[in-house]
Amino acid sequence: MIPRQQLIQQIKQKKSFLCVGLDTDIEKIPPFLKQYQDPVFEFNKQIIDATRDLCIAYKPNAAFYESRGVKGLQSLIATCNYLPDDCLSIIDAKRGDIGNTSEMYAKTFFDAAASGMSFDAITVSPYMGHDTVDSYLAYPGKWVIILALTSSAGSEDFQYLHTDHGYLYETVIKKANTWAGADRIMYVVGATKSLEFADIRKIAPDHFLLVPGVGAQGGNLEEVCRYGMNRDCGLVVNASRSIIYASNGEDFAEAARAEALKVQQAMQLELEKAGII
Amino acid sequence: MIPRQQLIQQIKQKKSFLCVGLDTDIEKIPPFLKQYQDPVFEFNKQIIDATRDLCIAYKPNAAFYESRGVKGLQSLIATCNYLPDDCLSIIDAKRGDIGNTSEMYAKTFFDAAASGMSFDAITVSPYMGHDTVDSYLAYPGKWVIILALTSSAGSEDFQYLHTDHGYLYETVIKKANTWAGADRIMYVVGATKSLEFADIRKIAPDHFLLVPGVGAQGGNLEEVCRYGMNRDCGLVVNASRSIIYASNGEDFAEAARAEALKVQQAMQLELEKAGII
Repeated sequence: MIPRQQLIQQIKQKKSFLCVGLDTDIEKIPPFLKQYQDPVFEFNKQIIDATRDLCIAYKPNAAFYESRGVKGLQSLIATCNYLPDDCLSIIDAKRGDIGNTSEMYAKTFFDAAASGMSFDAITVSPYMGHDTVDSYLAYPGKWVIILALTSSAGSEDFQYLHTDHGYLYETVIKKANTWAGADRIMYVVGATKSLEFADIRKIAPDHFLLVPGVGAQGGNLEEVCRYGMNRDCGLVVNASRSIIYASNGEDFAEAARAEALKVQQAMQLELEKAGII
Repeated sequence: MIPRQQLIQQIKQKKSFLCVGLDTDIEKIPPFLKQYQDPVFEFNKQIIDATRDLCIAYKPNAAFYESRGVKGLQSLIATCNYLPDDCLSIIDAKRGDIGNTSEMYAKTFFDAAASGMSFDAITVSPYMGHDTVDSYLAYPGKWVIILALTSSAGSEDFQYLHTDHGYLYETVIKKANTWAGADRIMYVVGATKSLEFADIRKIAPDHFLLVPGVGAQGGNLEEVCRYGMNRDCGLVVNASRSIIYASNGEDFAEAARAEALKVQQAMQLELEKAGII
């Protein structure tokens, strides 16, 4: 469990607001890991060991594990239980369903006694409204991270629709602001949308934003910080492929550390520029 | 695989457009089933055996299985593989993510070699746009069932927002109509929204609509048919709790059959009234 104040403290201490995305694809990990009983977990374990002092969060995307059936789920459970206590553990599941079903998803990702896993935070799709979110908020201290403005091309289809309360993604943020405060809710805002960060900060000045899309998807860290940072930092910036697949050889963990270190150093500069550290 | 024409033929032959929702909660199934190695699968198996001639689809909701971790996933895989070939198998997963991640979810639910499961159809949340849907459409013959207007209270939060192209749920339908035809895409429209069916039929005259919310959620079959049926029927109406939990005793499967029969008979009347059979 990482409450807001502790998250801010971790950011200041580690001089980093990096989240390492564990989108671990068994087809892309170094071939020599196949000798291990659970190659995906072994990969994650070594990545975690090599980066844990440089990042403040880890984010496995559920799809990469679910696609391998029972074996994949076992890798995800093992990974969840290996994540360090001082890092925010985010399951990127993008779930969204009605009340009695959301309760089941909350059990899946928040209740280790039921499923074997307990993450600190889950990403959630807002389309079905507050029903989707209530069941997760019922777990004290857990975070709900709501999709607002995503980084892919498909975000143009609906998220920029004009509504009576601004763009759809702005309406989502305004409405979700009424469900809980900045100590329980974060928003997903893609790094490729740096100009929109300024508008988002008008309606969500205090919230943490989870920002995917730096690295492989082309987002720019400096721009994200210019428009998106607040006095507590307020950003958790994710990088996945650019870090975890930095090398395909036996040095993959060292290479991942080197990449994570570059990002951490760039983040330290931004934190210093903003006077946060 | 159930192509559109075969689905229509099944409806005419079985005089039914019932989908049985396998939202199987281990806390709610008859206690005597605990003696089985996999009580949830045993429950589903007996429900399927008792109802397969009365329905044209089955729809397990992923959350109910995922909440039990590895054991739950094993029950889901066993259930998927037990579903009869003449029924449409729908995984109610409401997934939605960017392209490279959607590919992984498509593997999860459409590729038995990867995950152990191959459903005919998946429910998908549209918030992230076409990225979300493309990867599923890449599997020939599989259906994508897109959330449009859902049955719960939370549907008011965003789905009824006014946009330049009508309500948000109408915009979703209009846009998704450009991604693929009525032979690949269905829409979710809650049974509690019977008045909106008439408007939806103006923009999706030929599509099948997956309609949850009859039974426990209060939707009315006759109204759904009055406003939502088209010349091919065009409806797959789901009932879950009212059928599968009809009895909590050893007669649970017979009781489920009796409930399913009632619904089938009401559906037969509607199909006759419409001149479809």
